[in-house]
Amino acid sequence: MKTNAGRFFEDYRLGETIAHAVPRTVSGGERALYHALYPARHALSSSDEFARACGLPAAPVDELMAFHLVFGKTVPDISLNAVANLGYAEGRWLKPVFPGDTLRAESTVIGLKENSNGASGVVWVRTRGLNQRDEAVLSYVRWVMVRKRDTAAPAPAPTVPELAGSVAAPDLVIPEGLSFADYDLTLAGEPHRWDDYAVGEKIDHVDGITVEESEHMLATRLWQNTAKVHFDATNRPDGRRLIYGGHVISLARTLSFNGLANAQMIVALNAGAHANPCFAGDTVRAWSEVLDKAETAAPGVGALRLRLVAMKHGTEPFVTRSEDGKYLPGVLLDLDYWALVPR
Amino acid sequence: MKTNAGRFFEDYRLGETIAHAVPRTVSGGERALYHALYPARHALSSSDEFARACGLPAAPVDELMAFHLVFGKTVPDISLNAVANLGYAEGRWLKPVFPGDTLRAESTVIGLKENSNGASGVVWVRTRGLNQRDEAVLSYVRWVMVRKRDTAAPAPAPTVPELAGSVAAPDLVIPEGLSFADYDLTLAGEPHRWDDYAVGEKIDHVDGITVEESEHMLATRLWQNTAKVHFDATNRPDGRRLIYGGHVISLARTLSFNGLANAQMIVALNAGAHANPCFAGDTVRAWSEVLDKAETAAPGVGALRLRLVAMKHGTEPFVTRSEDGKYLPGVLLDLDYWALVPR
Amino acid sequence: MKTNAGRFFEDYRLGETIAHAVPRTVSGGERALYHALYPARHALSSSDEFARACGLPAAPVDELMAFHLVFGKTVPDISLNAVANLGYAEGRWLKPVFPGDTLRAESTVIGLKENSNGASGVVWVRTRGLNQRDEAVLSYVRWVMVRKRDTAAPAPAPTVPELAGSVAAPDLVIPEGLSFADYDLTLAGEPHRWDDYAVGEKIDHVDGITVEESEHMLATRLWQNTAKVHFDATNRPDGRRLIYGGHVISLARTLSFNGLANAQMIVALNAGAHANPCFAGDTVRAWSEVLDKAETAAPGVGALRLRLVAMKHGTEPFVTRSEDGKYLPGVLLDLDYWALVPR
Repeated sequence: MKTNAGRFFEDYRLGETIAHAVPRTVSGGERALYHALYPARHALSSSDEFARACGLPAAPVDELMAFHLVFGKTVPDISLNAVANLGYAEGRWLKPVFPGDTLRAESTVIGLKENSNGASGVVWVRTRGLNQRDEAVLSYVRWVMVRKRDTAAPAPAPTVPELAGSVAAPDLVIPEGLSFADYDLTLAGEPHRWDDYAVGEKIDHVDGITVEESEHMLATRLWQNTAKVHFDATNRPDGRRLIYGGHVISLARTLSFNGLANAQMIVALNAGAHANPCFAGDTVRAWSEVLDKAETAAPGVGALRLRLVAMKHGTEPFVTRSEDGKYLPGVLLDLDYWALVPR
Repeated sequence: MKTNAGRFFEDYRLGETIAHAVPRTVSGGERALYHALYPARHALSSSDEFARACGLPAAPVDELMAFHLVFGKTVPDISLNAVANLGYAEGRWLKPVFPGDTLRAESTVIGLKENSNGASGVVWVRTRGLNQRDEAVLSYVRWVMVRKRDTAAPAPAPTVPELAGSVAAPDLVIPEGLSFADYDLTLAGEPHRWDDYAVGEKIDHVDGITVEESEHMLATRLWQNTAKVHFDATNRPDGRRLIYGGHVISLARTLSFNGLANAQMIVALNAGAHANPCFAGDTVRAWSEVLDKAETAAPGVGALRLRLVAMKHGTEPFVTRSEDGKYLPGVLLDLDYWALVPR
Repeated sequence: MKTNAGRFFEDYRLGETIAHAVPRTVSGGERALYHALYPARHALSSSDEFARACGLPAAPVDELMAFHLVFGKTVPDISLNAVANLGYAEGRWLKPVFPGDTLRAESTVIGLKENSNGASGVVWVRTRGLNQRDEAVLSYVRWVMVRKRDTAAPAPAPTVPELAGSVAAPDLVIPEGLSFADYDLTLAGEPHRWDDYAVGEKIDHVDGITVEESEHMLATRLWQNTAKVHFDATNRPDGRRLIYGGHVISLARTLSFNGLANAQMIVALNAGAHANPCFAGDTVRAWSEVLDKAETAAPGVGALRLRLVAMKHGTEPFVTRSEDGKYLPGVLLDLDYWALVPR
């Protein structure tokens, strides 16, 4: 067999590091497409001039673009036979990515636990994105449920990694040179500084985007994500294509500009759940909650820990679960991240 | 409220200048997307070599891309609560925009007139697009009908600006260095020079493009235009998304290549009406009429004043209004502009 | 008439060379769009670093992008009035194309033969793509059936060119500097070298892509291909838009990554048939057959002659024709090409 059938649960070994294929050089082309696919308006990744005024050499590509590119590379090795994408933890952006950079990725298996049914198991990996200088630009833990090829294969010793509930504020990596001392609120689009946000505050981002098949496929291919279920209408019995969860993350994040225009850079991904699948025709909306605040050592730079929830049109904001504790059917995404905000 | 509810009629003050948010650096990515979204074939913005042979340092981005980028920036401040986009006047392109340039925009309120119903009013703004050197690249007047927040708010003294019916030929700004002395008609695609066009001549551009939802949304997001009605199928009672009028302008202009391949650069926007809304599924066609001709001081460069009409398939060309003077339902756009043509 | 009605059969003269219009400068934008439109993962055109490790100055754009750009330029002169695109032969890629290059095209008429019905004829052209240094980057023969304007026009003396059944291995042009001596199989995505492929071997590429209207139109416009039938839903009696055959070629080639990840560069197009039309909604799959193998003089570089077949979902792989010798209705493309593979 010349084609890649993907790994099954019994193919993973605790501690092994998998080098993922297909390095990718990014250019202004990927940035332009990000602006076409999502209503991206954060000034720092839109304008070289704005980024320079904030101490960076040029506008970095959106942090989620870096995430998607790295994530996409892991799919053929990690999630081709995944039944479910269960969670994220300990995600940190370590270096901005600029046009001209080339990204590759590798993942270390940090946990394995067979399910009691013997038909599948959970695999935890810590994935790193690396640039052409072998500098890590991104690191995160993801765990997925993966089918076994052979249900008779012996179960590995169960190892569940201990993961932080969220990235601690002192561990946030502030991009070298970043300063919001001369931050231009007018050019950024909103007057709200770090001090204007209170823990517990909730923001309905108001806008909505109705999703089309071709858009999510353009995006998912752009990140070289090969999961069949996103592209092949014959793959599911219902003839629907499942939208890549990262597409919903980017939609929600960019919709959150309206109310969080100054939450310029994502520096940590604390946790995330794809609560329900998203399909073409859905109109995606978003709301946020301020979970925590922290100071940083960089000039004028504060950090907000934010909960970002994406939902389908018709779902009330600010509620995610029914009385029995399950996600409401209209909730698509429940994400917990840190962003940098001018003080 | 952290989110932007947009300005209402009573929020505008005569003479105030509004600095619009979210500067944008353009690259070859935006140019490539322009070629994917529209059948753009004008050689000057397609080929660096052709542009250099015409005295420019490289291929500028399409003039309408500059227009859309500047226009998009104004939407959150000018037209978020607009009921109708009423007109354009005195538009002039002042500097070509090249990949690497960063654009921002500002608008000055030059007219205000409350409607007799007391529920809305007309706002006139003169908008300027500026590059990273604070040079104006584009300037135009637009007027929109905007809702009042509070119908009891007092009406401002009515001020209706006097606007030129068209930009006078001597006021056209020819890009520095532009020369059509060595213009290559073969590479440009058609043999027709300035002398070959006569005032009154009409051209049916023959081709048609059937519009898809994802295309107009990709385009409109690319220009960072945030008007909800273009993206959110739940926004209108009929569940349809209104296509950004600028998308129709670019479709019509690029369709007009077939017959006006040598109308290389748009230098002025004299007037424009979005006669009827355009929706996905419509097949857009276009025709042009030569309204005027002028010489310029640049070597080999003439100017044509052109009327560009976009219509839905099934509408006869060369007629726009019924006997009662109203636009026919199949007419989408009626635009009046100046373009530069080799003599 | 200012618009281009295209050439009819009687307009072609044996031996004449037609210079095609609209030169085009490519950038990272076109490359990013290629990655969004197709599941392109071949490392050599994805990563500047990978390409440098193979002796090239940077990642070239995909060879099929160069083909589509050149092909698109020929449409207004060659196939606007074509009834059918009959075949390709003697295609060779002569120089890699890099972002920053500007392409133009010219075609020489090498054969003419009127059909016995007197209503149309076959035109053979040899098309060359040229860069800004007037170096040929691509050359291929295509023949099309073209309508006559006037059935009474006299038939030319029939001239049918002798064409090679396939490009001979010694005639393959290996890009200057190319070396697979240090080829990284892990980064490339598959372990299979030239030695691992046997003549007669067949590979089902497994994956499928369901095609959307907006995607094929974005692609076809991007190559500045103006054939009406791809864009205008009113053009055919059945209201369907015919998908540009080159879109199917790129879909099939990129799907073939899964099993042929190391078939990095296309260097020759031996033959090709668009067996049946493709429409939006079709799910495209692909399979390949190894037709031949050859060594080259470049370090570590072998060549595989491959047959690439695209088919609609539901069609069995490895069979293309029914008992009467006709293509099965689910077969879309039957292509014969040479690619370079590490030894």
